[in-house]
Amino acid sequence: MPADATQQATQDQPKRHLAGRYLALTGGVGGAKLALGLSKLLPPEQLSFAVNVGDDFDHMGLHICPDLDTLLYTLADESNPDTGWGRRDETWAFMAAVRELGGPDWFNLGDRDLAVHVQRTRDLREGKSLTTAMANLAKAFGVPYALLPGSDDPVRTMVDTDEGELPFQHYFVRRRCQPAVRGIRFAGADQARLNPAIAAQLEDPALNGVIICPSNPYLSVDPLLAIPELAERLAAVSCPVVAVSPIVAGQALKGPTAKLMQELQVPATADAVADHYRGIANAFVLDDQDAALAPAVAALGLHPSVAQSVMVTLQDRVDLAQHVLDVIRELQRA
Amino acid sequence: MPADATQQATQDQPKRHLAGRYLALTGGVGGAKLALGLSKLLPPEQLSFAVNVGDDFDHMGLHICPDLDTLLYTLADESNPDTGWGRRDETWAFMAAVRELGGPDWFNLGDRDLAVHVQRTRDLREGKSLTTAMANLAKAFGVPYALLPGSDDPVRTMVDTDEGELPFQHYFVRRRCQPAVRGIRFAGADQARLNPAIAAQLEDPALNGVIICPSNPYLSVDPLLAIPELAERLAAVSCPVVAVSPIVAGQALKGPTAKLMQELQVPATADAVADHYRGIANAFVLDDQDAALAPAVAALGLHPSVAQSVMVTLQDRVDLAQHVLDVIRELQRA
Repeated sequence: MPADATQQATQDQPKRHLAGRYLALTGGVGGAKLALGLSKLLPPEQLSFAVNVGDDFDHMGLHICPDLDTLLYTLADESNPDTGWGRRDETWAFMAAVRELGGPDWFNLGDRDLAVHVQRTRDLREGKSLTTAMANLAKAFGVPYALLPGSDDPVRTMVDTDEGELPFQHYFVRRRCQPAVRGIRFAGADQARLNPAIAAQLEDPALNGVIICPSNPYLSVDPLLAIPELAERLAAVSCPVVAVSPIVAGQALKGPTAKLMQELQVPATADAVADHYRGIANAFVLDDQDAALAPAVAALGLHPSVAQSVMVTLQDRVDLAQHVLDVIRELQRA
Repeated sequence: MPADATQQATQDQPKRHLAGRYLALTGGVGGAKLALGLSKLLPPEQLSFAVNVGDDFDHMGLHICPDLDTLLYTLADESNPDTGWGRRDETWAFMAAVRELGGPDWFNLGDRDLAVHVQRTRDLREGKSLTTAMANLAKAFGVPYALLPGSDDPVRTMVDTDEGELPFQHYFVRRRCQPAVRGIRFAGADQARLNPAIAAQLEDPALNGVIICPSNPYLSVDPLLAIPELAERLAAVSCPVVAVSPIVAGQALKGPTAKLMQELQVPATADAVADHYRGIANAFVLDDQDAALAPAVAALGLHPSVAQSVMVTLQDRVDLAQHVLDVIRELQRA
């Protein structure tokens, strides 16, 4: 379906025209953009998010969840448009005070962002699950959607590099993705129980579609798929599973995906991402610029669909979300 | 000894002329003023502080030590001259964000103050003692003195009021000392082990004097004295123990001492404080304005000494400290 036809469809159809429920798997920034678009088309009772926790870490005694918070801030219109992470209208007095005291300053914690980490950490210390802690935060931010951690158990992305194995944030933030990556593992994933709320979504007969957002497949989506019960249940769903390429014209729109794919000796192309999702996704959304790769995607056994997937404006996000929902409907009819 | 003579003595004598070691028992603001004065006269190897932890509490998952921090900030010249608590040049973005999220906002935590609470809480979560956590902070602030928590075990001041029993900070901050006090207990004190570093000071043959700073006797000093080993060891020291009155002319210079004494049906007078320290202190420093109470103090068996004890300027703090050290020397000669 060409982009024009998709946009036509968006304009013709009223919002919330779709029946059933949708589950979107997402990591941080790239995925959150599509998540925001989906939230403009589907009400909370029809849309939930399964979110990567592989980036989570304990820092200065605080439990920090970068992807969950990026999604939270995005849906609350609280994300920082300048940095791409953290909260808008942020100040940095705490961080400056930590620096003065010789504390760790490689991971920036804004004063307003800190309120979230402190409240979540308090909930966890009181024995609440991460799911409950995030539900409390979502409520406080007025976000009516379920932001579901992939697991309430720890899953930690560990990056094997030419400097040795690094916890994800040490690789990503402290070392700014500079070390060359040789492999990735998800510590704890094999023991992690799938979030029961996600399990319930995946076995709900009303589940209409699963969307794999355009997050980094290796660093943001794989830690979700590494949870055995999630992979099993996802393989068993009868509804369409549509993945959206985070690679456009051989470049990652955000983050280190392309560099990482090269280091992992995978071509940094959209069809290589499609190959990665083979056996998991039924359909794969490619950017207009990669339309020529559609036959290659089809050859992998995934239904290819081409759209304008570079999301600059809010309308871009809504349009891509609408395209994805249209693909799901199309596959259901087929 | 009249104030004039004391000031003369200060000017005549060089600093650090005193041999031996000194231990000062202190709570928050009032006590910290004298503590600062003492620190201008004695080097770190001669002066240590035993600090009240009865006000400590866990709030939002953070471990907060108001008296230790007041002393830390005072000695580091970091205390806020406007509020009398917290850090100078403070900002409040974190607190505003907590308030927006519907979190607890009755206890103000500044952005810069928060750096201290977060670092201390991290140390404690890692299994370090409060003594070690405070030593780390003192080092970071460039404070060379030992700020010793009375105990590394929890001692919690509980205030029995006409609204029921309240944890100290709920009485003091949340309810602004408004409930009438009927009694005070120190939960955990009977099980609390005296800080070994304080025990070492008290059994050191070089100990020359103990100073009870002009903190609230009931709320700041009693939680220290409620630690059984501290009371026992203090009773056993052979050196002078000098207490300084926090009540001047029937008024507390800072905080709720006078109101509290009335509610506890104790006259809000300096000699009533002296009576409270009977059996613990050998000498009692009264303000010039209370010189007429000296015979009453002497009748209680404490050596009375009169000084200008209202500390407005830094020099006032140094002068009162010098007076206290002079009283100790005088008692040793006697």
